[in-house]
Amino acid sequence: MMLVNGAPAESIAVTDRGLAYGDGVFRTLRAVAGRPLQWGRHYAKLHHDCGALDLSCPPESVLLADVQRVAVGHALATVKIIVTRGGGPRGYAPPRGGVPSRIVMAEASAPPARHANGVTVRLCRLRLSHQPALAGVKHLNRLENVLARAEWNDSATAEGLLLDQEGFAIGGTMSNLFIIEDGALITPDLSRSGVAGVTRDRIIDLAKQAGTGCRVEALPYPRVRNAEGAFLVNSLIGLWPIASLEGRTWVPTTLARDFAHALETDDAARD
Amino acid sequence: MMLVNGAPAESIAVTDRGLAYGDGVFRTLRAVAGRPLQWGRHYAKLHHDCGALDLSCPPESVLLADVQRVAVGHALATVKIIVTRGGGPRGYAPPRGGVPSRIVMAEASAPPARHANGVTVRLCRLRLSHQPALAGVKHLNRLENVLARAEWNDSATAEGLLLDQEGFAIGGTMSNLFIIEDGALITPDLSRSGVAGVTRDRIIDLAKQAGTGCRVEALPYPRVRNAEGAFLVNSLIGLWPIASLEGRTWVPTTLARDFAHALETDDAARD
Repeated sequence: MMLVNGAPAESIAVTDRGLAYGDGVFRTLRAVAGRPLQWGRHYAKLHHDCGALDLSCPPESVLLADVQRVAVGHALATVKIIVTRGGGPRGYAPPRGGVPSRIVMAEASAPPARHANGVTVRLCRLRLSHQPALAGVKHLNRLENVLARAEWNDSATAEGLLLDQEGFAIGGTMSNLFIIEDGALITPDLSRSGVAGVTRDRIIDLAKQAGTGCRVEALPYPRVRNAEGAFLVNSLIGLWPIASLEGRTWVPTTLARDFAHALETDDAARD
Repeated sequence: MMLVNGAPAESIAVTDRGLAYGDGVFRTLRAVAGRPLQWGRHYAKLHHDCGALDLSCPPESVLLADVQRVAVGHALATVKIIVTRGGGPRGYAPPRGGVPSRIVMAEASAPPARHANGVTVRLCRLRLSHQPALAGVKHLNRLENVLARAEWNDSATAEGLLLDQEGFAIGGTMSNLFIIEDGALITPDLSRSGVAGVTRDRIIDLAKQAGTGCRVEALPYPRVRNAEGAFLVNSLIGLWPIASLEGRTWVPTTLARDFAHALETDDAARD
């Protein structure tokens, strides 16, 4: 089921700035029996991302009602929310007093595969650009991710690791990266490239609660390869330990297993 | 009038990858009495840009028929063509065997304002990122242009000049830049940032025909300010001399006037 501005619809005006310029943001999340998981975090992030584009974010109650309406028929669903700057005359200038478009859709999904033994990751050739004005934001300008994801089509490779143009590791094409180094947890700095996902925040918070903490640092690629362990996270997959990266192999760490378990427990508690 | 895949329509599926990821390219051009100006160049550029995204470009005859159909009712029209990767399941991976969407629309327009005395240009705060895999291509990921254009809303400012993150001038938010230095014509290198427009190519060709030539160079901002003259071009505006840029003022050069005239003569000859 799909809703456009709260009404059942499967299409949007061709003059919408979301299509014309990628002028908008989005979220992808899971719902269980019509209830979105980690809703508070997802809405806060959507609101933050709208702010980065000076876009007026739809009220939380309005979006939540949309989400519940599209997800209610599914035991498990993947929900996608898109907020664009809406319509307007041709030209880059955002129209004054424009009304954002909100699109909410759901599809049935299976429980996320656990991949307890880890997944195979390749290093992408595409290097991410630096744009501090947009870094961290899950906006609709995702051609870098599309080009990177088009680099492989074998089903044995689960994800691609992206470096920026200076060789720093940023994350997967659709996921955030964590490494373990001398027993400490580290995730890449995303102030110039990448998307800062909700599950990345959850891991950082869980690490704080556990007393181990998590450092946010610029992470040259060799440090990923030399790490004791590495894993990828997002709202749909949960946590995937990296078992293999361009010839480097790892056995999943206890820490990764503990975090995967903590994510699942936390989600279950909120159901 | 609007056509989506050749049929009258004003909307597109919300699952289209053009909306989801900005996964597509576009063109904006003028038409006189239903005939697109510089069609050969525009189609060649669209075809090239599709290639950069590994997108299958619709055949020239199909697009030309669409353009003529939407433009035929107007003495003068602005035509916009969008080609996206079409629909597909959620996820960045381009679907194999996907069918691109083509959207063609026209609106009535006035003849371009000549601005023979030049226009006022401001320097944008936003700095363009470097992405060699996408530079030059007129793709749908245009948030940098949107953010830059949102920096002003006074009608006295006609355009904003964009620098890249190393301080090199790249072009206007919607136009290409040329400067005159020691009597020679120079335009910025666009191999890392910016959009290489059709009118930029036309000026380069006209300069070659005139025997003066045009150099393509990395152009630090101070060289723009110290230039003998500067002008902006695109397919809709034609050529605008820059009269003022952040306190630096110029009287339009003969060279700019000659090129503006040559563009108009060339368009008229092809009508």
